[in-house]
Amino acid sequence: MPAAATIRPPSRPKGSTSPYPDHLRALVEEFLAGLDFAATDPHERSQMAGTEGLIEAMRHSLLAGGKRIRPVLALATCEALGADPRGLLPAAAALELVHTYSLIHDDLPAMDDDDMRRGRPTCHVLYGEDTAILAGDALFAEAVRLVTDRQGGGAEVQVRILREISHATGVAGMVGGQYLDLQMAGRESSETLRRVHALKTGRLIACAVHCGLILARPPEAIDRALRDFAQELGLLFQIVDDILDVAGSAEDLGKAVGGDARQGKATYVSAHGLDGARRLAAEAHERARLALMPLGPSGGDLVSIADLTFARRN
Amino acid sequence: MPAAATIRPPSRPKGSTSPYPDHLRALVEEFLAGLDFAATDPHERSQMAGTEGLIEAMRHSLLAGGKRIRPVLALATCEALGADPRGLLPAAAALELVHTYSLIHDDLPAMDDDDMRRGRPTCHVLYGEDTAILAGDALFAEAVRLVTDRQGGGAEVQVRILREISHATGVAGMVGGQYLDLQMAGRESSETLRRVHALKTGRLIACAVHCGLILARPPEAIDRALRDFAQELGLLFQIVDDILDVAGSAEDLGKAVGGDARQGKATYVSAHGLDGARRLAAEAHERARLALMPLGPSGGDLVSIADLTFARRN
Repeated sequence: MPAAATIRPPSRPKGSTSPYPDHLRALVEEFLAGLDFAATDPHERSQMAGTEGLIEAMRHSLLAGGKRIRPVLALATCEALGADPRGLLPAAAALELVHTYSLIHDDLPAMDDDDMRRGRPTCHVLYGEDTAILAGDALFAEAVRLVTDRQGGGAEVQVRILREISHATGVAGMVGGQYLDLQMAGRESSETLRRVHALKTGRLIACAVHCGLILARPPEAIDRALRDFAQELGLLFQIVDDILDVAGSAEDLGKAVGGDARQGKATYVSAHGLDGARRLAAEAHERARLALMPLGPSGGDLVSIADLTFARRN
Repeated sequence: MPAAATIRPPSRPKGSTSPYPDHLRALVEEFLAGLDFAATDPHERSQMAGTEGLIEAMRHSLLAGGKRIRPVLALATCEALGADPRGLLPAAAALELVHTYSLIHDDLPAMDDDDMRRGRPTCHVLYGEDTAILAGDALFAEAVRLVTDRQGGGAEVQVRILREISHATGVAGMVGGQYLDLQMAGRESSETLRRVHALKTGRLIACAVHCGLILARPPEAIDRALRDFAQELGLLFQIVDDILDVAGSAEDLGKAVGGDARQGKATYVSAHGLDGARRLAAEAHERARLALMPLGPSGGDLVSIADLTFARRN
């Protein structure tokens, strides 16, 4: 085990009854709120005058709240393995920057054309399409910079994390999945549907767990169990997304309900019906919990994340 | 010097009279043409079915030709320092992927709204805005993946290269510069103008030289000289761009002439007049050549790149 394992992680606040690891979410929020994307080098910093509007657009979307499931999952994986979750904060935050960039680009008029996100106007509505495109691009670059400049563990850990992130976001990952999603005509097989969502959502969710594994380096059997967990959780997340898109309330979601169905896209609900999709979600939830069995009580927060993903309303 | 220095670099073809290092451009073209963005992992590869259209859009823009100045500059820096340029091909290609992604996003209707680029229809004209946005996003991710998966020299070299790329492309780099460019109303001081273009174009040009320095590790005095060269070359490149935008012919450029002036943007020509801009270019060219003096004859290809950048017609 690495040295980090001997550091006592921040303990869960006494009396907390929330099933979600809010102590980890608080760490993430604090770290994200502190990001001003300013260069540390004085010359570099002097060159940035005038980019305040770009940074405001990036922070508008980045600090819109939410469960922060990707970074919390990365930190919870660390903590479950006895490593200090704070040691993974830069990489965990990088995942949230990547996720935010994908939301900004997804919401653009040429893509899903969404005006609202998490109860607030989307980036292009407030700042214009050009700034929104650039805010997404900049968040991706700044995510890489967070890992190269601030992630601890040495160059080998940094490269392995960036390898995970680049695989999870490229053609065989998030962006490839978004492309397939655009192409779907509503009559896809359930196998195609599963694959599209595995790329679009599942890979970055799994990547979060993998980042925790890279830093904490558990024995191989535990590593394998957590990779299985990561895969099931990604699947669960997307099925529930599809269910909420037709069955949720606009108030809970903070965005228009029925967006995907309205545009004739294939979803788990359109392919399996609402009850079928709920059954698939229950099965993925069960498999995710089973995968965590080898961790025993230390996997508690990860179980909570799976439970909350299954039960979430938004 | 690293082991790579003892490997004999590919020699320039006999009888070649071109001032540009075409042997390096040929290496770049061959490497880029071989990129199909397919995963090497069989499972990952099976997940990618249906992304062919995305890959076609990426390759359409990536393989549109051009001088390949960023990757050629990276390889020429290596070669000038006695290291095998082939050892830097993945990182050099990554720079071209990044440059291509920025062109695709720049050309979008919400940005510069260009229909033609290098004499061919732009990405969104052929494949739609949604696919063009995703093609740009994917090229960025695949650029990072090229470095983490294929760049040699060990994790330390990979991280240093990715650090350079992320700094050169983030808020204090290319994307920040593009944002400032969008904001300019045409009455900026020449100092502001210089700064905007240093971010927008100069940093990625300089990054190419820095990547060569990271792999070849020259003595400090040479390192410093090449960093000065990189800065002047970036400046020269942008001034000449501005001159060509008003004084070039559409046939030479492969795109509409006067695009920047038409939209009332500040350029070196609008700020200094055509003659003034030409004088500034000549001065930057002279400083770039001077910076290369310490390299002696081994800096020949870099001198050629500076000369060609100064004299280029497109």
